[in-house]
Order: sequence, then structure tokens, then C-alpha cells
Amino acid sequence: MTYKAINFKDKFSKFSDHWSPRVIAEMNDYQFKLAKVEGEFVWHDHPDTDEVFIVIEGELDIEFRDGAVSLTSGELFVIPKGVEHKPRAIRECKIMLVEPKGVVNTGDTGGELTAVNDIWV
Amino acid sequence: MTYKAINFKDKFSKFSDHWSPRVIAEMNDYQFKLAKVEGEFVWHDHPDTDEVFIVIEGELDIEFRDGAVSLTSGELFVIPKGVEHKPRAIRECKIMLVEPKGVVNTGDTGGELTAVNDIWV
Repeated sequence: MTYKAINFKDKFSKFSDHWSPRVIAEMNDYQFKLAKVEGEFVWHDHPDTDEVFIVIEGELDIEFRDGAVSLTSGELFVIPKGVEHKPRAIRECKIMLVEPKGVVNTGDTGGELTAVNDIWV
Repeated sequence: MTYKAINFKDKFSKFSDHWSPRVIAEMNDYQFKLAKVEGEFVWHDHPDTDEVFIVIEGELDIEFRDGAVSLTSGELFVIPKGVEHKPRAIRECKIMLVEPKGVVNTGDTGGELTAVNDIWV
């Protein structure tokens, strides 16, 4: 039989809201999620896990309490567990997140930007 | 301070051999690895873990005992644990692998294509 690859562009075409990650794949107990982001997110951390950001299209800045990192298309950054961070994008940016299943986007911070978890696209 | 993102193009420029994954990042006990592949790999499986293939540039086919999947740039596929697979690329293809630290590229099959593990670039 012919299996079908997961195409990022196709998956991104299926949703438009910001800061609301969509699961596209699972590997063991980890998930790959796509998100469209624009503007400022909230300060938060994930006390139990590292988190990977990969920029698929656009530009993303991630602020830390002691600095920042800028990512563009084809770049990856690992946020170590427990490190407070605040992503922001001046224009819409398309990203992929890799993290264990069950991680909430706002960590322990909560608030109105907290997305429903485990939504597949 | 200014942190530095991991740039795929930059990392790919630092090695040229085929079927020899280079680690670029760790997330918990998982690794992100880049590889250049060309030609046929060997049939193998990873009995204890799923494995993610992402094509960064080029085209990759992965054969299974019951079929195949074709991936191009911007596509992802999860090989379930224990499923025999044989990647092949007609022309050089640049890929990213995501899997637990310690996974050997040829699984239990071994042979001359078995790469030294945990080599960072």
C-alpha cells in the first residue's frame, strides 16, 4: 500500500488561529505540533520538560529573563525545562513544536492564551 | 545575552558523508539528528521506539514490507516501533531524524552502513 507523508503546508492550510498548536504526529509519548503565532505570548515555563521550537516560515523571537534568541525558517532551539520564556512574532510565523504529550502551551501560567490541548489537524 | 539558534543549512555544510547522522540538539532523552542520504539503505527496524523522518531538502522514499511512502521537503513520517523499513534516495537528500538518544541507524541489522552513534556537528 502507499502510505501518506504528513505535509506541513497542507496541515497549516487547515487552521488560522494564533497560539493554538495542532498535533500532526506522535512518536512514542511525544507530539509534533504546528502553530501559527503572531504578537506576544505570555511568560511561562515547563517545569518538567524541555521544549523544541522549529521555525517553518517567518521569524520568531523568544525572550528569556537573561536574553533572547531569534529564529528564522530552518532553525531550531531547545528551551530547557524550567526556563521561563516568552515567544513573540512581529508578523505571522509558522512553527513546529516538539514536546511530550500533555504539555500545555502556557505552562503553569495559564490565562486566556491557554490552548485546548491535544487537538489534531 | 544573545542565544544562537541551530541552523539546519549551517549544520549540513559541516559534513558530506552519507547515512551518517549528526546530532544537532537534545530534548530530554531524545535527539535531533541531520543526515545526508543517497542510494539504498538496509532493511532494519527499531524494536523499542518509533522514529521520525523529516525531509529538509530533496526526496526520500521509505519502503516497508507492505508498501512505501514518499517524502519531499516539508514532510514528516513516523516509523512505528518494530516496523521494518528501508530508506532510499535517488539523489542526495537532506533529512532530520528525531528519536531517543542511543538509537543506532541500522537497528539490529548492523553491517557496513552502521554509523558511529552520538556524533555532534
